[in-house]
Amino acid sequence: MKKIAVIMGSDSDLPVVGKAIDTLQELEIPTEVHVFSAHRTPEACAAFTKTARGNGFGAIIAAAGKAAHLAGAIAANTTLPVIGIPVKSSTLDGLDALLSTVQMPSGLPVATVAIDGAANAALLAAQIIAVEDQALADKLDALRVKNTEAVLKKDAEICAKYHN
Amino acid sequence: MKKIAVIMGSDSDLPVVGKAIDTLQELEIPTEVHVFSAHRTPEACAAFTKTARGNGFGAIIAAAGKAAHLAGAIAANTTLPVIGIPVKSSTLDGLDALLSTVQMPSGLPVATVAIDGAANAALLAAQIIAVEDQALADKLDALRVKNTEAVLKKDAEICAKYHN
Amino acid sequence: MKKIAVIMGSDSDLPVVGKAIDTLQELEIPTEVHVFSAHRTPEACAAFTKTARGNGFGAIIAAAGKAAHLAGAIAANTTLPVIGIPVKSSTLDGLDALLSTVQMPSGLPVATVAIDGAANAALLAAQIIAVEDQALADKLDALRVKNTEAVLKKDAEICAKYHN
Amino acid sequence: MKKIAVIMGSDSDLPVVGKAIDTLQELEIPTEVHVFSAHRTPEACAAFTKTARGNGFGAIIAAAGKAAHLAGAIAANTTLPVIGIPVKSSTLDGLDALLSTVQMPSGLPVATVAIDGAANAALLAAQIIAVEDQALADKLDALRVKNTEAVLKKDAEICAKYHN
Amino acid sequence: MKKIAVIMGSDSDLPVVGKAIDTLQELEIPTEVHVFSAHRTPEACAAFTKTARGNGFGAIIAAAGKAAHLAGAIAANTTLPVIGIPVKSSTLDGLDALLSTVQMPSGLPVATVAIDGAANAALLAAQIIAVEDQALADKLDALRVKNTEAVLKKDAEICAKYHN
Amino acid sequence: MKKIAVIMGSDSDLPVVGKAIDTLQELEIPTEVHVFSAHRTPEACAAFTKTARGNGFGAIIAAAGKAAHLAGAIAANTTLPVIGIPVKSSTLDGLDALLSTVQMPSGLPVATVAIDGAANAALLAAQIIAVEDQALADKLDALRVKNTEAVLKKDAEICAKYHN
Amino acid sequence: MKKIAVIMGSDSDLPVVGKAIDTLQELEIPTEVHVFSAHRTPEACAAFTKTARGNGFGAIIAAAGKAAHLAGAIAANTTLPVIGIPVKSSTLDGLDALLSTVQMPSGLPVATVAIDGAANAALLAAQIIAVEDQALADKLDALRVKNTEAVLKKDAEICAKYHN
Amino acid sequence: MKKIAVIMGSDSDLPVVGKAIDTLQELEIPTEVHVFSAHRTPEACAAFTKTARGNGFGAIIAAAGKAAHLAGAIAANTTLPVIGIPVKSSTLDGLDALLSTVQMPSGLPVATVAIDGAANAALLAAQIIAVEDQALADKLDALRVKNTEAVLKKDAEICAKYHN
Repeated sequence: MKKIAVIMGSDSDLPVVGKAIDTLQELEIPTEVHVFSAHRTPEACAAFTKTARGNGFGAIIAAAGKAAHLAGAIAANTTLPVIGIPVKSSTLDGLDALLSTVQMPSGLPVATVAIDGAANAALLAAQIIAVEDQALADKLDALRVKNTEAVLKKDAEICAKYHN
Repeated sequence: MKKIAVIMGSDSDLPVVGKAIDTLQELEIPTEVHVFSAHRTPEACAAFTKTARGNGFGAIIAAAGKAAHLAGAIAANTTLPVIGIPVKSSTLDGLDALLSTVQMPSGLPVATVAIDGAANAALLAAQIIAVEDQALADKLDALRVKNTEAVLKKDAEICAKYHN
Repeated sequence: MKKIAVIMGSDSDLPVVGKAIDTLQELEIPTEVHVFSAHRTPEACAAFTKTARGNGFGAIIAAAGKAAHLAGAIAANTTLPVIGIPVKSSTLDGLDALLSTVQMPSGLPVATVAIDGAANAALLAAQIIAVEDQALADKLDALRVKNTEAVLKKDAEICAKYHN
Repeated sequence: MKKIAVIMGSDSDLPVVGKAIDTLQELEIPTEVHVFSAHRTPEACAAFTKTARGNGFGAIIAAAGKAAHLAGAIAANTTLPVIGIPVKSSTLDGLDALLSTVQMPSGLPVATVAIDGAANAALLAAQIIAVEDQALADKLDALRVKNTEAVLKKDAEICAKYHN
Repeated sequence: MKKIAVIMGSDSDLPVVGKAIDTLQELEIPTEVHVFSAHRTPEACAAFTKTARGNGFGAIIAAAGKAAHLAGAIAANTTLPVIGIPVKSSTLDGLDALLSTVQMPSGLPVATVAIDGAANAALLAAQIIAVEDQALADKLDALRVKNTEAVLKKDAEICAKYHN
Repeated sequence: MKKIAVIMGSDSDLPVVGKAIDTLQELEIPTEVHVFSAHRTPEACAAFTKTARGNGFGAIIAAAGKAAHLAGAIAANTTLPVIGIPVKSSTLDGLDALLSTVQMPSGLPVATVAIDGAANAALLAAQIIAVEDQALADKLDALRVKNTEAVLKKDAEICAKYHN
Repeated sequence: MKKIAVIMGSDSDLPVVGKAIDTLQELEIPTEVHVFSAHRTPEACAAFTKTARGNGFGAIIAAAGKAAHLAGAIAANTTLPVIGIPVKSSTLDGLDALLSTVQMPSGLPVATVAIDGAANAALLAAQIIAVEDQALADKLDALRVKNTEAVLKKDAEICAKYHN
Repeated sequence: MKKIAVIMGSDSDLPVVGKAIDTLQELEIPTEVHVFSAHRTPEACAAFTKTARGNGFGAIIAAAGKAAHLAGAIAANTTLPVIGIPVKSSTLDGLDALLSTVQMPSGLPVATVAIDGAANAALLAAQIIAVEDQALADKLDALRVKNTEAVLKKDAEICAKYHN
């Protein structure tokens, strides 16, 4: 199975990014985690990215805050799908990271998820792998069914609680 | 090769979405184009989406404006990757469509591209197919090289023009 | 009397939505409460909505956060009045939910109230029922008088306190 | 049948508000149109509003731009449902009118529709009347079917056009 | 000396508005404080406002949050200067109150100060009275000098502290 | 009668500011117009401002766009009431000018009107003068009556036009 | 004299960036102009940047729109001062470019000027060179005097025109 | 070596500005710290600024919140590079200070860094001095290497931790 790379711009992003790692591990998708900064370690980041397809990766998740250039910088060095997680920081409620991640120029898409949406980034990576992996697709479908059932159960409880 | 579905919420989105269709055709990726509204034709949209994986699709591109629910409504009915294009409408400069597309709840990712970023949506779909299709990956790499050369050529021209 | 349905996208919305339920109960309006997700349980949500008018409902209140599609998804399946409560979540201060709820395309209105404005959603539902129910209209008028008197009392207290 | 009042803050709002009047006329709902300003003619506005229920109105639509107080000022004087249309003006793209209309304090709901969403305001008013008027409900359902068919027709055309 | 009225939309605004009252008292300007709601007590508010000039008031300060109509509603009933304080509430950081207060239509100005800027509202009211009251103008000038000296003292302290 | 100063940050603001000048002339209030830049002619601006009260001015209107410091810079040099007009420029729709004008620190109020709200700035200045000038107050009241009548006339026309 | 590099992310930015080039030429500062894309030609951009100090440059101006990473990418490869011009594009009025340029993480400053503020970028570059170049400082001071005189002249004209 | 001035608009900005002072001290750059208010002590501020170049300063850092005029007011009185730090205050998350600082009119640049970006302001000042000071440039380069190594070390740790 293709591997997924999870890259964060700073180890301070780990509380957010942890949910992506957890989700990938629950789905038993081989994962490699890195701290690369678009600005502080551009060369390590580029070296990893340029060889990622050859090294068996199927998608790269990149999480960063503020002027979040990480996902875009990765996208510049690979034609693998790059998934961007805008991370909320101390000001502007994540709007800066969202716009810096999603508003990419023509030619270099970044598949952006919600602000701090790390679990969804992992699921999107899994969905990409699952395009050619029916077993993983079945696993994702099963997860959906489980989530649906959880909501239906909550509905039954709350509907009953307020029944008058 | 897996097919790509391009879905727009209204035929008035065609001027924006057209760039996605063109890009997919240039890449010779089989494409099917639809007008489905999350609100006006929810059943036709759901019927298409639920059978999309079985019908040979590898990703679905969805474009909508204002309270742009289309991509999310599609994501609710498939575990295929869903790519959202927020479309700018007559007010709020596309911010409404961007937030309605990208801020999806946990469990249902939408791979969001820039406002009106239809070409990038197509490239992202192609990148997803290319994960297991080296020929398409080579084509995407070649496109990058072509774009790089175009910028380098512009650089040479403009650098010379302003040389003093 | 027509019933009011109160639907929340997740049981985590209950602290906000609770004020709507309380208000409806104070007004002695028959209420049914559900947890339906536009994305996780679209079919249960559609099934409820399509039969709502026939089942004696007069309006549907829908509360959701982030890319808040719930009210719109409900509006797609009924011509009953649908009242949307945008719920504030951990980022963007509710602006995402507000725009996702209010900016509906032509043909499918959602009667949107303030961010976290659950009490007003209940009052609006009551006002809709009261169009043809003079007793309820009288009750709503009486509530207004009570609120007016409360403000006048506060005015008297504070005016006196700062009188010099 | 209950009447609908359509009130605009200035006759310059007529190009936007016209769609509400047209929609109500198509639905054959008795309509009365006024120009009342919350600020310039507060007394005429209050006089109309306080007697609206007694005069046979079932809902009031109010359209205003900038610091759009009109819908709120009307809501202060009636417990009829009040529907607010935020009107886009020369600056801020309608955001000022949206927030001034929707963010009402507890006790005084305004059912807010999209910026410049006059057709939806009329439909919402019709939906309110239709709660106790099955013939109008049937008419609204028929309109939905017509709109659905129009989208399905567009889908067939565009799907065929791009079929390859 | 003309009196200043300080009006708040709800007694919950008192922690913000208190600074205006304190500032006016320090300046020994006769002040009258009220709780009037544009929506809950429109008639009491209008009655006070229409007679304010005749009753010896020189300016009216109005503080409100969310869809802050209070200052505008007051401005509709008097040609006295009306000063608006937008009050920050639980969502949107006061932006809703700011736009609802400042974006008044032509013909009805509201002199808007910063979000939660109650002290400045009081100073502005004093400046208005001082146009024809040299003693008060002198007092305001003296306050400026005092503030200037306080900053210069802080400058001396901090400049010395970091001197190296 | 006290004079009003109208100051613009650049002569390119004249199309906006012209409405303030016209309004003051209609009200027959003596007016002096200047182009002073907070940044390009700070000394001329300060010299004018510091002597404004002594020279018979009763209020100063200041209009500027972008990082609109003009009104604040003037407020720093006088305790006369300073009225700020945020001017919309080529980007950000006037939001930058609005926030730069209204969000003044404690101690230095700027009476801010709507973006491009020049007519209201003039009326506010007139209202300030009118606090101690009953004839001017009467003129302002008469203007209100005229505006009210104009709206009532429009109401009669439009109400009749759509009467069915 | 140290040279200034002017780099634009795309030749479509030339209408904006042209003002920076013109300003530098008027100041007779040696200038080199390039088109480098952070994403399309990252290596050419990095190669230029890493050698810029050694090649006699004193500052680098970088202009880009949307998710404007160019200035940050350049800042990652040099400790020369980097000046960022956020360029307005077809959506969001330049806010995306502003936040992407200015919100840089700790350690990598970008000296950001106003949206489309190319002339100021050039002046800032000149000011940086002028720190150790008194002749250039004198030239900049003279330019200020010229601008001041131009404003004073406009003031005299407009003051006279409206004198009554 | 040229000195750097660090100016804050209020001593309450010291917790933010402290990082700039610390960074300059670590780099052994002579620093002078002041509290000057654009509004409360405009003359002290102007006096300092006009003589700054002659007194051996190479750049001025200015930090202020809300309607942050300080950096612009300083820029009006010198052609030294002025670096603006927008400071987040109790409302609007620093957006007001950012726009008030960065959106300067043509002719008067302010080199703006991120909201609360004091460390970057100091680094930018150092980079400006380093244009003609190779030893300082070497120190800045060494700091970059140290930061790069810290990220690489974190990468090794986290990569190992999640290796499976």
